[in-house]
This record gives sequence, C-alpha cells and structure tokens, in this order.
Amino acid sequence: MSIKPILFESGVVKMLDQRRLPTEEVWNDYHDYQGVAEAITTMVVRGAPAIGVAAALGAALGARDIAARDFDGFFAQFEKICAVLAATRPTAVNLFWALDRMKSCARGNAQSPLPELKERLLAEALEIAAEDERLNRDLGRNGAPLILDGARVLTHCNAGALATGGYGTALGVIRAAVEQGKQLLVYADETRPFLQGSRLTAWELLRDGIPVTLICDNMAGYLMSKGEIDCVIVGADRIAANGDVANKIGTYTVAVLAREHNIPFYVAAPLSTIDLSMVDGSEIPIEERASREVTHVGAQLLAPESVGVRNPAFDVTPARLVSAIITERGVVSGDYRQGLRQLAEKGG
Amino acid sequence: MSIKPILFESGVVKMLDQRRLPTEEVWNDYHDYQGVAEAITTMVVRGAPAIGVAAALGAALGARDIAARDFDGFFAQFEKICAVLAATRPTAVNLFWALDRMKSCARGNAQSPLPELKERLLAEALEIAAEDERLNRDLGRNGAPLILDGARVLTHCNAGALATGGYGTALGVIRAAVEQGKQLLVYADETRPFLQGSRLTAWELLRDGIPVTLICDNMAGYLMSKGEIDCVIVGADRIAANGDVANKIGTYTVAVLAREHNIPFYVAAPLSTIDLSMVDGSEIPIEERASREVTHVGAQLLAPESVGVRNPAFDVTPARLVSAIITERGVVSGDYRQGLRQLAEKGG
Repeated sequence: MSIKPILFESGVVKMLDQRRLPTEEVWNDYHDYQGVAEAITTMVVRGAPAIGVAAALGAALGARDIAARDFDGFFAQFEKICAVLAATRPTAVNLFWALDRMKSCARGNAQSPLPELKERLLAEALEIAAEDERLNRDLGRNGAPLILDGARVLTHCNAGALATGGYGTALGVIRAAVEQGKQLLVYADETRPFLQGSRLTAWELLRDGIPVTLICDNMAGYLMSKGEIDCVIVGADRIAANGDVANKIGTYTVAVLAREHNIPFYVAAPLSTIDLSMVDGSEIPIEERASREVTHVGAQLLAPESVGVRNPAFDVTPARLVSAIITERGVVSGDYRQGLRQLAEKGG
Repeated sequence: MSIKPILFESGVVKMLDQRRLPTEEVWNDYHDYQGVAEAITTMVVRGAPAIGVAAALGAALGARDIAARDFDGFFAQFEKICAVLAATRPTAVNLFWALDRMKSCARGNAQSPLPELKERLLAEALEIAAEDERLNRDLGRNGAPLILDGARVLTHCNAGALATGGYGTALGVIRAAVEQGKQLLVYADETRPFLQGSRLTAWELLRDGIPVTLICDNMAGYLMSKGEIDCVIVGADRIAANGDVANKIGTYTVAVLAREHNIPFYVAAPLSTIDLSMVDGSEIPIEERASREVTHVGAQLLAPESVGVRNPAFDVTPARLVSAIITERGVVSGDYRQGLRQLAEKGG
C-alpha cells in the first residue's frame, strides 16, 4: 500500500514533511490556511497533484474560519484566501485547477446556509484528494502496457505517491506494471538541487519493495549510451495544449538524451495537469528558487558563499521529444493538440 | 596568478586538499610515495594533469628512499613503486604517461651513480610539473580565439589550475581569453557527486576575479534552450586516437545538449592526455567509485542507506560531438585520427 502524504484528521491537515525524508518521517499539523500556504512554498509538500490537494484542503480550512454573515461577504474573503494559496508556487497548474474547483463549489452552493457551504467545501477538498488517488490507479493501468517485463526504467524527480493524493503518476505506472507481475528495475535520478529522487523516489520505492538504483542526474546519458535504460517515465507540472511539458528541472535534458538513444520518453499526468489555455510551453511560467538550495545541503556549504547561482526549478520539454502522454482517460501520442483536447472533452 | 595545487618544498610534497575546498584551505604534507598514492586514490588531488604531476613526484619520493646497491636492484623496486602509483586510478592516462616518463628517465640514467640518478628523477618530476603549467599557457593561447568577447561559457567539472600543474586546460583557455581583455561569464556545472564545479571551479574563478555562475548539472539544458550558453569547454582524462574523449561523468550529456542546440563543444587537453594506443573511446577503462559519494555529502545522508547506487566517475563523448580539441601544439577539428597523430608526431 503506497503512502498518502496528506491526511485530514479531526479538523487538522497532516502532511508528511518531505524535506526531512529519508532520514526522518515527521508529520506536521496544519490548523489554518496560512500554515498550508507556507508548507507549499517551503516544499513540505511538493509534486503538482499533491500541491493541488494541499491547496484544496487549505482553502477548506480557510473557509471554515471565515466569520461572515452572508455569501457575498464569505466569498470575498474566500477569494482572498485562494489568492494567498495560489501565490505559493507558479508552475504547477494543478494548484490553480484545485482552487478554481473550490471556488466553483462555493459559487454552486451560494444558496446554502454558510455552515453547510463550509461542509460542502471540505467534502470537495477531500473528494479532490480521494479522486486523485483513484485516477492515478486508472492512469497506472493505462500506462502499464507501455512498460515491458524486464524493463530498466529511468525516472526523474518524484512523481510518486508522495507527489500526489496517493499511488503516483509516473511511479503509479511503474506500480501498476509491477502489480501485473512485471520485473522492473527503476533508475532514479537524484534530481538536484532538492534531491527528490534520492530522498523521495528511492524511499517510497524501497518501502514498496520495488527495485531501485540511484544515480546522479549527469549519469543517465552514460547509462543510455551503454544500453542500460529501456524507457523513461516522468510526471508533469503543466502540459500546454500542444503537448509541451513543464516538469522538474532536468527533465528536458533526459528527453534530449532519450531521443539521442531512441529510448521512449513517457509523461504520466492527470488531466488536471493539462492547461489548454496555453498554446505551447513558452507560455508556462518557470519558477526560479533561492540560491541556497544549490549552495547548501542542509547546513553544509557546498560552494563559495559569494558565487552567483541560477536555480530554475522547472524546464519545458517540447512535445516532439515526448513519445506519449499517459492520463487517467487514455494515452495520447502523435498529434497532441487534437488528442489532448479530445481527452479533456471526453468527460470523466 | 592562478593557484598551484602541488608544491615540492624541503623534500616534502605539499598538496592542497581539494576535498576540503571551498570551506577550508588545508595543505597536506607527503613524505613518501605511499602517502601520495593514497592522496590520488582519495582525491586530495584530482584532474588528469595534476594526477600525472603528483604521481611523478610520488615516484621521485619513492626513488629517494630505495636502499639498493646497483641499478638493477634499484629499478626493480622503482617499478614496484610505479605500479603502486599506477593502481590508484584507472581512467586518466596522464598518470601512466608521467610514470612511463619517470621510468624512461631512470633507464636513461642507468649508468649514473644512484644518488645522482635519484636527483635526476626528482628533477624530471619537477620538470613535468613546471612543463605542465607552461604548456597550459600555450594551450590557453591556442584556444582563446575560439572564445568570443561577451561569451557565456559553460564548463563541467574542474579543468582549472587545481586540476593541473597550474593555470588549467579548459579554465586556462578562459584565463587566456580574459587576459586578452574579453568579458566572459562562466557557467559552472556543480558536477555531482564530487562537486568539482561548485567546490573547485567556482572557488578558483572567484579567486581570480573571473565572473562565474553556478548551476546544477541538470540546468545546462534549460539555459541552452533559452539561448544563454554560447559555447562549452571542458578538459579530458583520456582522448582516444579517433578523438573520443573520456572526461568527468556528465560531459557526454553536455555534449549531446550542445549538439542539440548547435553550440560549439570544445575539449582542452595537453598532448599527454591523448592515448594513440586506443583506437576509440570504447577501450578506455571507466572507473566506478564508491556509492557513498552519491548517498552522502560529508557526513550527511541524502538517500535511504539501503538503496543501490551506480557511480561511474567518467563517460566517453564520441568525437562526432566534439567541435575541436585544443592542445599546446595547436587546435584539431574534423579528422581527429589524422590531426591528433600529426600533432603527436610534430614534437615539442
């Protein structure tokens, strides 16, 4: 049973502090939306779908605490709360998608008494979380046939249970293939600077008994050149209408390497990650994070204090390098513009 | 004045402990060849030319301490000492080149009294060190015209003063271009797992006032896709007769990315790095190092203790991805097989 990184118990949001893995398994309690917003910004929780789930629960906590007399007063405050949550991180679209869904839910229940509306919002947030795990299982089943028995599968960053409501997207496909009896070896890029691969992907795969070998990001090309990688599967933070994929920094490099070696490069993501409002990847905002993530590991200094640093947290992989996009409603390849729109319109 | 990482003073080899940079500048004393061998294995000193210099000085220390009565007795022991030094690291050919030169020097002075022979060997080792710095300056002058004013230059690992007898190969070309008045910005890949880029390249360029910006290895592709890199220059640990280049792990990935973006990819290395005995790069032995380099930074654990790890320390960049090889005797491009042989035969 894969881990769920975000729980709601007795009116409190509980999140596994992913900054402290793998050495410590610490759960933090969040009693208000400000705490949840801070947790997203500081990467207690990360991964596009998990950020969406956390933001929805944060919005529900915020709604609960609003002291308004009527819907208009309530909704004005609720929109401000959602704006705070939306300002935490810019790239993952699931954040905005989840908050839009919470606002729609509020508007759809404008006629309800406020206590009931607040209950509805909490139920909606919990449904976003539960639904995310369910659709990851569907996504996993859709993608599993692409992973052959015996495959050596490279993944970058963590698109696992820890990045979602549970089960995972890229790692969900791997889990589904393993559940079908396939023997796999997962190569996990360590994924500098935040080390989601070594700290999170290695941890959750070992926990589930799935064979995993850790490499530094700059070793994937070597293994490909030696014929030791059969396919690549990664998650996504936002997918544009043309199939361009924003994902953790380094994904683009892996995609270029995969093409150079004729290795399939798959992207696994729920439909909530697809942003049809963006024509192509050049419109996707790329977050640049603090230099300290690059110059330090914990308290340890790795570089001269005064050195300049660039720290883009994401990059964009052009659709031409993507062999297929795996969603909960099916697998798209070739003409992404048409295929993604059709999937989005197909309905749940 | 760029730093020299290996000194010989009062009968003692002194090496800047590169494992402790950039936070501490510690010089270690080595009184015997065993200490020097250990320093090479544990990467107190690294970088192909610097390893050659260290090994030569180690051999001179070893020769000094041999208690033999005649040349045959001396040489048998000297060969054993050279074998110990040669077994420290497998990939950088300069190590074997320097030890071969020391053995040739011994054989060439077989008729000399042993005390004089030992002096000759020490002089030869010191000449290897001094010569390395001189030829790096020649190499730098040869390469500087390839670096345009205003260029944003990516380098990987450390092929600087710290990797050589002084001045550097890839960073020597950058130094020479800066000495010609060109304004450059150097992007330094941090170079996991040993972090030669963040710890060493950033340190030595800042020390010399050359602008440097640090990035993680997986960010170079992003910067290239944004048009923020104009050329790449790296060093080499061994170059085969056909121009295939073994260099620090991740170099191959940078070369693939450079080709994808039509960015020139230059290799700077002295002729002692060229191994005409190897037809192509597939013959070059690639060292795999301990998993702890990947799972830990200092004492800090970055990954689950039980995870499997791959840690190849080098990779091979095929000649077709190399725009030019810059040596102390000239620049080769195109037909490397012919060009490298001609340079080697041209003489000093």
